[in-house]
Amino acid sequence: MLGGGALRLLAILDLSARRWVANSLGPQVVEELSHVLDVKAQPRAAEDGAGPHRFTLKTPKGTRDYGPSQMAIRADVLNKIISVFKRHGAETIDTPIFELKEVLTGKYGEDSKLIYDLADQGGEILSLRYDLTVPFARYLAMNKISNIKRYHIAKVYRRDNPAMMRGRYREFYQCDFDIAGHYDPMIPDVECIRVVSEILTSLQLGDFLIKVNHRQLLDGIFEACGVPSDKFRTVCSSVDKLDKSPWEEVRNEMVNEKGLSPEVADQIGEYVCLSGKIELVERLLQEEMLVGMSRSAHDGLEAMKLFLKYCALYGLQDQVSFDLSLARGLDYYTGVIYEAVLLNDTKTEQGETGGVGSIAGGGRYDNLVGMFDPKHKNVPCVGVSIGVERVFSVLEARLLNSRAKVRTTEVEVFVASAQKNLLEHRMQLCKELWDANIKAEHSYKRNPKLLAQLQYCEDMGIPLAAILGESELARGIVKLRKVVTRQEIEVERENVAQAVRDLLTETNEQR
Amino acid sequence: MLGGGALRLLAILDLSARRWVANSLGPQVVEELSHVLDVKAQPRAAEDGAGPHRFTLKTPKGTRDYGPSQMAIRADVLNKIISVFKRHGAETIDTPIFELKEVLTGKYGEDSKLIYDLADQGGEILSLRYDLTVPFARYLAMNKISNIKRYHIAKVYRRDNPAMMRGRYREFYQCDFDIAGHYDPMIPDVECIRVVSEILTSLQLGDFLIKVNHRQLLDGIFEACGVPSDKFRTVCSSVDKLDKSPWEEVRNEMVNEKGLSPEVADQIGEYVCLSGKIELVERLLQEEMLVGMSRSAHDGLEAMKLFLKYCALYGLQDQVSFDLSLARGLDYYTGVIYEAVLLNDTKTEQGETGGVGSIAGGGRYDNLVGMFDPKHKNVPCVGVSIGVERVFSVLEARLLNSRAKVRTTEVEVFVASAQKNLLEHRMQLCKELWDANIKAEHSYKRNPKLLAQLQYCEDMGIPLAAILGESELARGIVKLRKVVTRQEIEVERENVAQAVRDLLTETNEQR
Repeated sequence: MLGGGALRLLAILDLSARRWVANSLGPQVVEELSHVLDVKAQPRAAEDGAGPHRFTLKTPKGTRDYGPSQMAIRADVLNKIISVFKRHGAETIDTPIFELKEVLTGKYGEDSKLIYDLADQGGEILSLRYDLTVPFARYLAMNKISNIKRYHIAKVYRRDNPAMMRGRYREFYQCDFDIAGHYDPMIPDVECIRVVSEILTSLQLGDFLIKVNHRQLLDGIFEACGVPSDKFRTVCSSVDKLDKSPWEEVRNEMVNEKGLSPEVADQIGEYVCLSGKIELVERLLQEEMLVGMSRSAHDGLEAMKLFLKYCALYGLQDQVSFDLSLARGLDYYTGVIYEAVLLNDTKTEQGETGGVGSIAGGGRYDNLVGMFDPKHKNVPCVGVSIGVERVFSVLEARLLNSRAKVRTTEVEVFVASAQKNLLEHRMQLCKELWDANIKAEHSYKRNPKLLAQLQYCEDMGIPLAAILGESELARGIVKLRKVVTRQEIEVERENVAQAVRDLLTETNEQR
Repeated sequence: MLGGGALRLLAILDLSARRWVANSLGPQVVEELSHVLDVKAQPRAAEDGAGPHRFTLKTPKGTRDYGPSQMAIRADVLNKIISVFKRHGAETIDTPIFELKEVLTGKYGEDSKLIYDLADQGGEILSLRYDLTVPFARYLAMNKISNIKRYHIAKVYRRDNPAMMRGRYREFYQCDFDIAGHYDPMIPDVECIRVVSEILTSLQLGDFLIKVNHRQLLDGIFEACGVPSDKFRTVCSSVDKLDKSPWEEVRNEMVNEKGLSPEVADQIGEYVCLSGKIELVERLLQEEMLVGMSRSAHDGLEAMKLFLKYCALYGLQDQVSFDLSLARGLDYYTGVIYEAVLLNDTKTEQGETGGVGSIAGGGRYDNLVGMFDPKHKNVPCVGVSIGVERVFSVLEARLLNSRAKVRTTEVEVFVASAQKNLLEHRMQLCKELWDANIKAEHSYKRNPKLLAQLQYCEDMGIPLAAILGESELARGIVKLRKVVTRQEIEVERENVAQAVRDLLTETNEQR
């Protein structure tokens, strides 16, 4: 078994490393290890507790620090996502990390128990935000904004008991894109799908499929099948389980827990197992049993028809699948709903997700803003949330597998000294490079060893080193070294900045 | 006096607009107004309370939303700051928004009462982070990191009763740059100053001065003047008030509250009123009364001498002033301390700050990490915090004064239609533009009016409009319009993307 050293090592591993361990040792071993670690952490700190801190040195449960390489991956992902949002003309906003508790009350059903409350220290009763959608609706109502296309990337908080080995946390990023305003049917809706498609393409996550459905159609199916209208939402949440459970289980739940007759359940089953393209919409529009029995089903189908037509105009016909099993958990959706799934996850993910994972989701919610407006004035909204934490996990795992190294700085040239007593020369040269807007650094030691300096350049992936030596300085010369090839050229001391710039351009062009 | 309409107007103004009102009406009127607004807000919402929400529609006290134009200013400022950090080879990290309460305990002296606690919902006792320095020290100790140069830009939380009219909030951004590691004296310290100088220059905030001092020298002065060592910190906090209060007041506090004899206070006064350049250091190094009485004073002065020499090498001699009145509030500083002030604030600021405002500050803190390490192993640190909220305020006020408009999107071309029934053509063209990585949008209405579309382009500062018309489409032509000059050219329908790109390049070159 693993000794204390291995345990301590595991304790400081980040997510992707833990995942790698999980794949090598098998999930069960790691699950056990994880428990051991949680238990171990407590007494160990207590033993050390003679010092100024008598508590476990850790981040709060369900949270973690992001180190430089994790931040570099995150920045890269978010930059790609943001450039898609900007390509579609979106603005960005931010809201406080906490809201009046009442703002969140009654918005999340039974998940409300997962909301973090702040202590009552006199004054207002506050809670940490649970998502970005409710604060967005509050923002629109409070500022009487009737139309906006905005993105919002920020952390949200849920007191879940997340399986942290699987990349779920209590503090995590959400990344939302929403279009609010009174517009003509399906035009903003389809742009959300187009945004998802551009983002997943740009992130190179492999093939994906965007499932779409419509709440009105689902309600219409329930109506046509004879479900009483007060059971629409609860039956809908059963249907929502179809992405994880087989139909038999869902049917059992409908019959045994939700009180539907087996016949009604079976009739629902015939519909929700369907998926296809616009032809399926056309076929269902012919079904008298459905569209004749339910106005809602007819309207939902007509809406899907328009939506799929627009999808084709935006070049999305191959990526979009009309899928009647898609239900989405949240109560507040009122129209089109969608969810993007990766078709072939990276290898490390397969064991955990069965090869398919939801990576984005959203839909239309026309009544949420009205819940905040004193006069119930609604602002129709449609939006999508990109599962960026999932994206981070996939990319971290992929990177770990490839053993590639992430650069965590952008330093272009390291100013090194070959002998002692050249600190002031190094500082002088750094100043000139910074003045010339070149990213440069040097050692914070007076007399660092040349080998240590060059090793640092290799470790950090710095492309160039400017090496100062006494004899060269006497000749008015500085050596410029390409770190990878170890090739060196001599340049005049006065021209170092220009020479560095030329070499960088040359190197970039060779790539 | 102002009526209900004006009050409602004021209520939705953002910070800079309030400040502008403050400058027009005078601070007293606005202070009163502000009280009225706070009182008014409560009952107004209660009256409306028949609907689904029965609470005041507001953000929590001391917080606010950031709208698109505020976010655009923030993004611009932060990008400039980040590029300076990157020019110096810094990495970035992030930590959770909350910490175990014990992590923060005993780090902020009497300000600890301003810490936000989370409710005890079973499990760990948590608090929102109060600054970024303590979490950084916890991060270093927990992950056993012995050297790093990192920046961290994130929100922190203080249950202050801030004067919100003056731009202080309970949720605000901090922007920190720190260098941790065992290095040779003053080399990382002076780079922090250089970073501050580059940032303030790049933000074009006007002339500034960086005051520097040394904690060891301050302690040495107290020692030489006969202050008992257990009063060093409290006397230091009196000295810290010299930037806002005249010497007489500070002297009174020392004598009447801190229990110093008038002679000791006067002797301190002779030193802490001094400021100058390296010559002042040299002169003080000759003073037997000081360096002969206190080893600490001698060491502090020698350290300042080296620091100022390095400042000159980094081209900072004119921006740096050795100022013995600088004390800095926080207990944890152990070496050099510094603070940057703007010399000529923008006009709107003068009324509030007396023309001078601190815009960055920091220093060396060698013992903080050791407070977290079980074996008290220290990691010496030096860092600086940029007062970004202050920067935002100054720039927002300046922008408001200039009546310039901030662009909140980066849309390059708007696809407009001149007649009805061209929606699908617009969608098709947008698809092509997005495929070509051009930032484009079109109206979400089926049949928008041409004038409304062109007005939108002008409002949003979109440089180009691609106008689709029936007769032009029949001829295989699209009109491209430069929004500012209203000049139009005809391009072939197949070449719109290329033509847009050419026009954008041309327009950018003309700037």
